[in-house]
Order: sequence, then structure tokens, then C-alpha cells
Amino acid sequence: LHVLICPKREVKRVADLTDDENIELWRIAHKLGRQLESYHNASSLTFCIQDGPQAGQSVPHVHIHILPRKIGDFENNDDIYDVINEKEKELKRKLEVDIERKDRSLEVMAQEADEYRKFVF
Amino acid sequence: LHVLICPKREVKRVADLTDDENIELWRIAHKLGRQLESYHNASSLTFCIQDGPQAGQSVPHVHIHILPRKIGDFENNDDIYDVINEKEKELKRKLEVDIERKDRSLEVMAQEADEYRKFVF
Repeated sequence: LHVLICPKREVKRVADLTDDENIELWRIAHKLGRQLESYHNASSLTFCIQDGPQAGQSVPHVHIHILPRKIGDFENNDDIYDVINEKEKELKRKLEVDIERKDRSLEVMAQEADEYRKFVF
Repeated sequence: LHVLICPKREVKRVADLTDDENIELWRIAHKLGRQLESYHNASSLTFCIQDGPQAGQSVPHVHIHILPRKIGDFENNDDIYDVINEKEKELKRKLEVDIERKDRSLEVMAQEADEYRKFVF
């Protein structure tokens, strides 16, 4: 499982966020993280922002990666970061119309989003 | 370069922080990140919290990793996370009295801390 959260306003870098946006973004990230961890019977969380292209950011819209973690979820704990980079590439692909990609159905995605939305709002 | 910031109060998990502590922690992280990026002529930032042992947290006191990033700083962008894990191990070693470790001098460390303190306070 891998959730991304981003501010509605499209800003490139963390430094472009207003104080209020920052506070709100992290308030939601922490609250959602807590709920995801419990929902998925996990015991830890990885929070990560790749803030700028040289940090691995593939899409110029600030986003926080949140991943619930549990014992043995990866052979090496560091492999989690391959997942983060894969997600960045996936994001980029989604924005490139020339690449075909089999998404899950809109229904399935909406259902999952509805579940998570309950946690925060 | 690798900076860790943590709340003064010793809490294990992000979920244990009060709202005010969270806000303050991220306010400082973002402000410091911005300054470190410029100070070190970098162009991006990696922010990361390993929140709990299964996420790689080695010391039970919440801390944010901040790393200024620039083009070509690592052969593979993901190698940055080896650095984060090495830092976690270093933190753990520092708290284990039975392992000898050659720290930089207190003077050198204090000088660096003074430089960075100017950025935030």
C-alpha cells in the first residue's frame, strides 16, 4: 500500500506552500498515517517528500509519500525506497498520454479513496 | 550533508506529538531545508521520517532527516536512502557506550550547529 497526499493548489516545491497549507498538509498526513497503520495492521510508517527533481520528484506538484510498514514487508528495509521511486515513475507515466497503462477500474479506485477519506474528514 | 531535527520532548512516534509540536517541527524543517539548500548550492531536498522500527527508525525519538540534493550527488538517486539508514545506525551506535567511535571535535560540531541555528532562530 502506498498513499500520496498533495495540496489542492499546484505548487512545485515545499518552500512554495503557505504556512497554512503546510500545517494542513502535515496534519492530514499524520492523521491519515495513523489510521492507515491501524487499518492495515501495520506497526510503523514511512513518510517521505522528494522535494525537487534532484531528490527524485517526477511530477512538479508537492506530494507526501505515506507507506504503512510491518515486520518482513520487504526483505531489506531499504527496498521501500524502490517502491517510492516506482510510484514517482508511475505518476509521471500517468501524465504522459503516449504510454498505455492498465489502471484499476474507476470504481475500485473510488471505493478505496472513499475508505481513506473517512479517516481524515 | 545530513541534518536531523527532533522535538525537545522525547516521543517515540509521530502520533505522540501534539499538534503544536508537529507544526513547529515541520515549520523548522521547511525553513531549515530552504536555507541548507541555498547554503550548500543544492537544488532539491529529501525529507524523510522513519516513523517506527519497521520503517527503519533506530532510535525511539521522532526525527526528520533533511538532505540537500544536487545533480550527480549520487550515482543512483536511490542511494540517498542508504545514507539515511547509515545515519540511523550511527545514531544507534552513539547511544551504545560499548562501541568506540571517533567523533569530530566538539568545537567543529558546535561551529556547524551555530551556523545552522542562525537559519532558523
